[in-house]
Amino acid sequence: MRVLGIDCGSERTGYGVIDSDGVEHRLIAAGVIRTSPKWRFEKRLLEIARELRRLIGEYAPETAAVEGVFYAANAKTALKLAHVRGIALLAIAEAGMEVAEYSPLEIKMSVVGYGRAEKRQVQTMAQSLLRLPEIESEDASDALAVAICHATHESARRRLSGEKL
Amino acid sequence: MRVLGIDCGSERTGYGVIDSDGVEHRLIAAGVIRTSPKWRFEKRLLEIARELRRLIGEYAPETAAVEGVFYAANAKTALKLAHVRGIALLAIAEAGMEVAEYSPLEIKMSVVGYGRAEKRQVQTMAQSLLRLPEIESEDASDALAVAICHATHESARRRLSGEKL
Repeated sequence: MRVLGIDCGSERTGYGVIDSDGVEHRLIAAGVIRTSPKWRFEKRLLEIARELRRLIGEYAPETAAVEGVFYAANAKTALKLAHVRGIALLAIAEAGMEVAEYSPLEIKMSVVGYGRAEKRQVQTMAQSLLRLPEIESEDASDALAVAICHATHESARRRLSGEKL
Repeated sequence: MRVLGIDCGSERTGYGVIDSDGVEHRLIAAGVIRTSPKWRFEKRLLEIARELRRLIGEYAPETAAVEGVFYAANAKTALKLAHVRGIALLAIAEAGMEVAEYSPLEIKMSVVGYGRAEKRQVQTMAQSLLRLPEIESEDASDALAVAICHATHESARRRLSGEKL
């Protein structure tokens, strides 16, 4: 199955697309949508929406996931992030997909097998699972970790319910 | 000038469209976009986006405003609201408009002339300024108050800069 993972942020939104049967994962695309802090906030949201729609159109994922809502210590940052997250959920819903959400703990457990893993370990593991020499951007590897987590959960669910992978 | 005001909420998003020269305000349309709490959150966002786009297409406002970010005591509520707000900012930006934002204090000052006015007084005043017998929904009258506030500020700005109203 083809899976899209998104790591939301107002300046950098990472994305990762993989093909996976839940065990073997293959990189299709990964990168970062960057918007300038000099732009008005609504223009940044517009750019993120356009890029996400373009990516969904180009790679045609059949299922998508984002990290669950993040209660940051900084309320302002959390609220900005939630605006971007709204845009990501909309882009996924517009493409007719439901949104799967995973907590940072679930993502760590799924990718590293250890809930207290460091951010850097998650990135290294995502890279290793995809047999990549290096993932340049942290935002892209965070998004790939979300995609791997979702591929693992979704394929298990499908196997257990007898659905096609 | 034709002004759109939006009062964001995940269950009820109020909207108000007025024609105004900054002194006289006339109601064009007002109402509430309701979404069911039983729906998945992304489906609610999709419905709000569709309705806002339809309203903007139908009434063709030339300028739009929303209430500034609301730091609720309840972080969960504030984060949900911020997702919806992201959708509203996107719909406005997609229509080629910039988003004006006003704090609750600015809205109260502008509509009632008194920053510590009660919510109910703002609604009554919005109703009175539009010479309406009654505005049924609180969400719609909150959105009309945002529109009146923006019409007043924007017309003053245009007058002072010698622009066409």
